[in-house]
Amino acid sequence: MPASKKIQESMEKSSFIRKMFEEGHARKAKYGAENVFDFSLGNPNLEPPAKFKEVLMGLINDPDPGQHAYMPNAGYLETRSAVAAYLSKHNRESFAPDDIVMTVGAGGALNVILKTLLDPGDEVIIPAPYFVEYNFYLDNHQGVPRVVGTGPDFSLDLDAIGEAITAKTKALLINTPNNPTGKVYSEKKLEMLAQLLTDRSRKLGRPIYLISDEPYRKIVYDGLNVPSIFDAYRESFVVTSFSKDLSLPGERIGYAALNPEISDKEELRAGMVLCNRILGYVNAPALMQRSVSVLLEESVDVSQYQKKRDMLWEGLVACGYECRKPEGAFYLFPKSPIEDDVAFVAGLQEENILTVPGSGFYGPGHIRIAYCVDDRTIENSLPGFERVIKSLS
Amino acid sequence: MPASKKIQESMEKSSFIRKMFEEGHARKAKYGAENVFDFSLGNPNLEPPAKFKEVLMGLINDPDPGQHAYMPNAGYLETRSAVAAYLSKHNRESFAPDDIVMTVGAGGALNVILKTLLDPGDEVIIPAPYFVEYNFYLDNHQGVPRVVGTGPDFSLDLDAIGEAITAKTKALLINTPNNPTGKVYSEKKLEMLAQLLTDRSRKLGRPIYLISDEPYRKIVYDGLNVPSIFDAYRESFVVTSFSKDLSLPGERIGYAALNPEISDKEELRAGMVLCNRILGYVNAPALMQRSVSVLLEESVDVSQYQKKRDMLWEGLVACGYECRKPEGAFYLFPKSPIEDDVAFVAGLQEENILTVPGSGFYGPGHIRIAYCVDDRTIENSLPGFERVIKSLS
Repeated sequence: MPASKKIQESMEKSSFIRKMFEEGHARKAKYGAENVFDFSLGNPNLEPPAKFKEVLMGLINDPDPGQHAYMPNAGYLETRSAVAAYLSKHNRESFAPDDIVMTVGAGGALNVILKTLLDPGDEVIIPAPYFVEYNFYLDNHQGVPRVVGTGPDFSLDLDAIGEAITAKTKALLINTPNNPTGKVYSEKKLEMLAQLLTDRSRKLGRPIYLISDEPYRKIVYDGLNVPSIFDAYRESFVVTSFSKDLSLPGERIGYAALNPEISDKEELRAGMVLCNRILGYVNAPALMQRSVSVLLEESVDVSQYQKKRDMLWEGLVACGYECRKPEGAFYLFPKSPIEDDVAFVAGLQEENILTVPGSGFYGPGHIRIAYCVDDRTIENSLPGFERVIKSLS
Repeated sequence: MPASKKIQESMEKSSFIRKMFEEGHARKAKYGAENVFDFSLGNPNLEPPAKFKEVLMGLINDPDPGQHAYMPNAGYLETRSAVAAYLSKHNRESFAPDDIVMTVGAGGALNVILKTLLDPGDEVIIPAPYFVEYNFYLDNHQGVPRVVGTGPDFSLDLDAIGEAITAKTKALLINTPNNPTGKVYSEKKLEMLAQLLTDRSRKLGRPIYLISDEPYRKIVYDGLNVPSIFDAYRESFVVTSFSKDLSLPGERIGYAALNPEISDKEELRAGMVLCNRILGYVNAPALMQRSVSVLLEESVDVSQYQKKRDMLWEGLVACGYECRKPEGAFYLFPKSPIEDDVAFVAGLQEENILTVPGSGFYGPGHIRIAYCVDDRTIENSLPGFERVIKSLS
C-alpha cells in the first residue's frame, strides 16, 4: 500500500466513474467514436476566438525579452491592470491591480483562496448539486464541506444556508452559472444572501466569506446578465478562468479577484500570493497571461451553445424528460425517469450515450448532460434518449 | 486575523526576505536598475533556444483541432511517449508513456508525488543546504522534513541519512545539481545511498522512496554527466522542468517520471494522476506540452553559464572569498567571511549587491549568488564584492 490512505480511498471512491469512462472508451473503440454520443465531459468543442491566434502570433513573432521568465507570483502587472480595468467596468467597485492574482485556472484560484483562509476543521458551506472537485479542494487544506440543498429550481435555499452556519463556518462557496444545473443566481437572491451573511458575520464577530466560482459567466443565454457578487456582498472573492469563454481549458489560465472593499485586504492578498507560490503553481503560465490581457472582452460565439441547449432541451422534453431550461453554462440536468440515476446512466450507455449520474454532483435522481459537443452528436443522440425513456414506461 | 494561522506564520517568517526584496527594489528605483547587481533570483537570463520559437509558430500557424482543450490529466500521450523515449535513451531502463506524468513545473511534480505518498506525520529526509520551498511542499500534505547535514564539499552524508531514518520515513528528497550549492552527486555515492536505502527498506518491510529534483540536469560544466538516479535505485521518482534548460520558468511546464521498475507502479501512477487533478493543476499547460515534445534534446547554450561561473568564481576567489567551484546549476555558495551571513548580505546590499543568506537554505555561514545574469553585472559587481570583504579583515 504505497500511496497514502487518503489517496487510496479517493481512488477507490472514484473507481466507479473511472469504470464508466473506460466503458465509454471501449464503446468508442468498438462502435467508432462517431457512433458514441459522449456528453460526459465539460470540454468545450468550440475553438478559441480568431483573435486569440492573432495575439499569440504577435507575442511570438515579436517577443519581449524574458517573456517566458518568472514574473511576480501574483502575475504581470500589465495583466493584472487589464483585469482590474475590466472588472471596474463590469462591476460598481473600482479595482486595482493588487486586487487580482493570476492563477493556474479557476482550480488553482480556488485552492489559493482556500489555503489562505482555512484552518484545519474550518467549514465551507456548499449548495448542492455542485462540482464535486470542491470536496478535494477543501480537503487539500483540511477544510470540511457542509452541503446544503437548493430549491426545486436549484435556487439558493437561504434557510438551509442559515441553519448550516456554525462557529466553524469560514465561507460559502457558490458557482454561478452553475455546473451541473446551469442555474444563474438572481440579483434579488444574492442581496438576500448578502443580508444573511452580513447578519451572521456580525454575530460571529468576523466575516463569513462568499467565494463565487464563475468560469461560465459569459456562457449565458437569452440576453441574461449574471448579477455581480462584488456588488452584492463586500466580503467576497470571485474566481474564474478562460477555459470556457475562450475555450482554453488545457492552458490553465485564470484569476482570483478580491472585492476591493474586503476587510483585511492586505493580509488576504499577501496570503494568496504566498499560497500561489507554495502550492507549487508559482505563477499562472506566462504566455497565456500576456494573451488574455488583451482578450478580456472576447468570447467564443455563445449563440452556438444556446442553439445546442435549445436543440437538446426541446428534444428531451418532447420525448418526456423533465428538465429545467438552464440560463447558462453548457449542461442540462434532467430528472432521471427512474430513481436510480446510476442505473439510468447505465441504460443510456447501452444506446452509446455517455452521461454522468447526478449523484456524482450531490444531485441524485438527475443526470448531467454536457452539450458542449457538435450539433450532430446532439441530433443523432435524440432517438436513443427517446428509446431509453420509452422502454421504462 | 482573516488568514489561517499557518499562512500568517509563514508570512511572518518570510517577512525578512520580503523586506530584503523590497530594499533591493528601492535601491533599483534610487540608483537605476543597471547600477544594482541583482544575484538574488534563479531566473535565467538566457532566452529560450531559437527552435522553441519555430516550434511554437508551427503549432499556432497550423493548429490541431482542440489543441487548447483538456487532455487526460497525465498529459498528451504524444508528449509522454516522447519523454519516455528520451529517458529510455539516457538511462538504462526502458520507459513507457505511463511512467510519465506531465506537470505544472517541477514544483507541481513534487507536490503531486508528495500528496500521493504522504500520510500525516510521514517524514521526508532532506540533505541541507536545500531549496526551502521543499518545507512548504511537505507541509501542504502534512509531511515533516528531517533535515540532515552534508559533507564539507556538500556531498551526501550517508551516516547522517542512516541515522535519520525512522519508522515514519517515507522518502529521501535530493536535488542534483543542487540549489544552492551546485553540487552534483557522484555515481559512487548514489550507489552507496541505494545500498543504504535498500537495506533499510528491507528492515522496514516497505520501500523508502528516493525523489530526485533535477531541473538543472543539463546545466553542468566541464563535460560532466549527471549520474542517473533511476540506474542507481529502483524505488525512485525523478521530477524536472523545462524552466532552466529551455529558459521557460514562467510557462510552468515539467514532469514527474516513475522508475519503470518501481514497486506497486500501477497504484502510484494512478495516485499521481489523481493528485495532478485534485490539487487544482488539472494538467500541464497544453501548448507547452506540445512544444517540449520536440525539444527534449535542446537546451540553452550552457557554455554561457560556464563562462559566468568561471568569471564570478575566479573574481571572488582572487579577492579572498572561500568558495567551492560548483559542477552545475547557476549558483555560487561561498562562505560568508563573517559568521552572520544575514549581516554579510546586508553589507553587500550597501554596495548594491543583492544576494540571499545561506541560512535561508539551511546553510548558515554562506551566501547564495545566482549568476544567471548578464556578464556585465558579474564584471561590475566584483569591485563591490572586494570592498566588502576587505572592509571586514
